[in-house]
Amino acid sequence: MAEHPGDPVLPLDLSAATHVSSLAAARRPDSAFDDVIGAFPPGEECAAAFGWVLRQSIDEVLDGQRTGRFDVDDLEKTEKTYLGTKVEIIARDHFGWERGQRGRMDYLIAGHEVDSKFTSGGNWTIPAEAVGHICLLVKADDHRSSFQVGLVRIHEDLLNAGRNRDGKRSLSAIGRQAVHWLVRDGRLPPNILLSLAPHERDAIFHPPATGRRRSGSGQARTNALFRRVRGRLVDRNTVLTVARQDDGPKRVRDARIDLRPEGIMVLGHQNQHPRIARALDLPVPDKGSWIAVKVRRLAPGEESGRPAVEIGTGWYTVWSEGDPAPEAPESY
Amino acid sequence: MAEHPGDPVLPLDLSAATHVSSLAAARRPDSAFDDVIGAFPPGEECAAAFGWVLRQSIDEVLDGQRTGRFDVDDLEKTEKTYLGTKVEIIARDHFGWERGQRGRMDYLIAGHEVDSKFTSGGNWTIPAEAVGHICLLVKADDHRSSFQVGLVRIHEDLLNAGRNRDGKRSLSAIGRQAVHWLVRDGRLPPNILLSLAPHERDAIFHPPATGRRRSGSGQARTNALFRRVRGRLVDRNTVLTVARQDDGPKRVRDARIDLRPEGIMVLGHQNQHPRIARALDLPVPDKGSWIAVKVRRLAPGEESGRPAVEIGTGWYTVWSEGDPAPEAPESY
Repeated sequence: MAEHPGDPVLPLDLSAATHVSSLAAARRPDSAFDDVIGAFPPGEECAAAFGWVLRQSIDEVLDGQRTGRFDVDDLEKTEKTYLGTKVEIIARDHFGWERGQRGRMDYLIAGHEVDSKFTSGGNWTIPAEAVGHICLLVKADDHRSSFQVGLVRIHEDLLNAGRNRDGKRSLSAIGRQAVHWLVRDGRLPPNILLSLAPHERDAIFHPPATGRRRSGSGQARTNALFRRVRGRLVDRNTVLTVARQDDGPKRVRDARIDLRPEGIMVLGHQNQHPRIARALDLPVPDKGSWIAVKVRRLAPGEESGRPAVEIGTGWYTVWSEGDPAPEAPESY
Repeated sequence: MAEHPGDPVLPLDLSAATHVSSLAAARRPDSAFDDVIGAFPPGEECAAAFGWVLRQSIDEVLDGQRTGRFDVDDLEKTEKTYLGTKVEIIARDHFGWERGQRGRMDYLIAGHEVDSKFTSGGNWTIPAEAVGHICLLVKADDHRSSFQVGLVRIHEDLLNAGRNRDGKRSLSAIGRQAVHWLVRDGRLPPNILLSLAPHERDAIFHPPATGRRRSGSGQARTNALFRRVRGRLVDRNTVLTVARQDDGPKRVRDARIDLRPEGIMVLGHQNQHPRIARALDLPVPDKGSWIAVKVRRLAPGEESGRPAVEIGTGWYTVWSEGDPAPEAPESY
C-alpha cells in the first residue's frame, strides 16, 4: 500500500528518503518516552493485564446481563465510541494512573502526559491536538480474540494525509513502524458465546423445555449453556449474558442439580471441584468461572486407560461417544 | 417565548390558530398511543421505577468506584451521549420491553414501536426519522434531583423550526403541551456526594490521617464519609465512589470499628440495626444502604426527652451539640 508523507510540497521521488528520516525522527532519543515505556509491566504480565482490561471493557459495554448481547458488532454507534472511554477508565484504574494534569491528555504515566487511543477497527484515528504527544495505542478485535498495545510519540510524518470528517488522520505504515509495541500479538480472554457455531448458540438461547424448567427461563438457558459447552472454562459474564439475571452463581448451582441426570457435572472453584478438574485433566476454574464435564462411572475393577477421579464411593471418567451411559455422582 | 410553527408558508397572524390546531392534532384519538400509556405502571410506582433507572444509569456512567466522579458535569462528551443509551438499556431491562421489531425504534411497548429520547439538558432533540412515531421522553437533572418522563407522538408542528448540526429539532412549547406526562415532577434518589457543600466533600475525599488509617486510603475516606454524613441514608454507590474499592460492605464494617471511639455508629439492614434506627427515629436502611449516627449513653435514670434505644446493657440517644461526651456501644 502506497504511503504519502504528510508534507505535500516534497517531490514524490524523495518520499523514500523522507520515510527513512520520519522514522529516524521518531527514534530520536526521547527520555520521556522511555520513562513511559518503563512504567509498564514486562511482556507477559502486560499482556495479561491489558487482556483483562479489554475483556472487562467489552463485556461492560455489551452489558450482556441486561441485553443478551455478546457481539461488539451489535453495539450502537454511541456504544462503540464509548468503548474507547471505558477502556481508558478501566486501564487508568487497573494500572493506578492519574488523569493528565492539564486535563487535556488522558493519563499521567511516570510523570508524563499520555493520550489514550482505542480502536476496534483497522487503524487509529489521531486528532491534530495529539501531534507531539505520546499516545497509548490500543486495538482489540473480539472476533479474532486478538489485541495490540503500543506507544508512539505522534509526529506529522507518521500520519496519513487524508482527514476524516472530524479532521482526524490515521496512522501511516511508517507510523506503525515507529510504534513501540508493548503487546504485539495479544490474545483476548475468550468470548465463549461469540466463539460458538450459530446453531450451538441458538440451542443455548432458545432451549427446548426440559424437566421442570420453562424453555424461556434463564435457568433453562443456563442449563443449555453447560450442556453444550463442556471441557471449556465458562466465565461469570457468559453465564449472566445467557441467564439475563443477576445471580449467576445461583443459576450455576441449579444447573448442577438439573444436569446431574444427564451425567453432566459443573465444577467451580470450591470444595473438591479443583481436585476433580485436575484429576480429569481439565482446566481448573478460578473464582467466577466454571467448567462442565459429562462423566460416567467406571465399573468395579474397570481400567479405562483415561484419567479418572474418585468421588464419594465411585470412580468417574470423562464420557465419550460410544461409552456406557453417562452418570454423574449424587453429590460432589 | 415566541414559538414558530414548522410550516413557514403560513402567515404569522395565523400562528395562534395554528398552535391550537397543532395541539388538537396531537390530541386526536390514537389508540396505539393509549395502549402505550396503559403499559406503564401507575403514578407513584412509575416514578419510583424511573427514579431507580435514572439513578442507576447515571451512577454506572459516572463509574465512581473507578473514577471517583459523582457529578455528571465531569462526564466527557462521549459519556454524556452514552448516558442516553444506558438509560434506554436499563429501562428496557427493568420494564421487560423488547427492542423495536424493525430495528429502527428502541422499544416495543404493548406491541407498538416507541423511540427513546433522553436529555440531561433543557430540551429534547428529535431527529427527522422520529416524526410520526411515539417517543418516550426522559429528562434528568442530577443537580436538582429532578426528572420527568412523558410520551408524545411527534408531529412536525410540535418541533421548533431550527435544526442543530445533526439536523435535529427541539420540542416546541406547543410540543411540550402535547406531552402526556407519566412523571411530571419526579425526584431522583439523592446523589449524596453532589448534595454536600464543597468543604464537606473535600473533608471526605482528602481526610487527615487518623488512628491507624493512612490519609490516602479508601478506609480513611470511608470513615470520613460516615463521620460527615450522619442521619442520612448512604447508598452503596456512594461508599464505592468514596472508597474506590470493590468491597463496599467490608469498608463499612471497618468504619464501624474505626468510628466507635468517636461515638459514631454505622447501621445497616442486618442484626438489630433496623430496630436501633427505628427507635432513634432515623430512616431505616435497606440492603445496600447504611446510616451513621453519633450517640451518647444515657446516665442511669436519665430522662433525655428524646428517642432512646437499649443496646446491650445501656440506653443510647442521638448526641447533640452541648451534650455529655458521645459514646457508642461496644458492639451492636
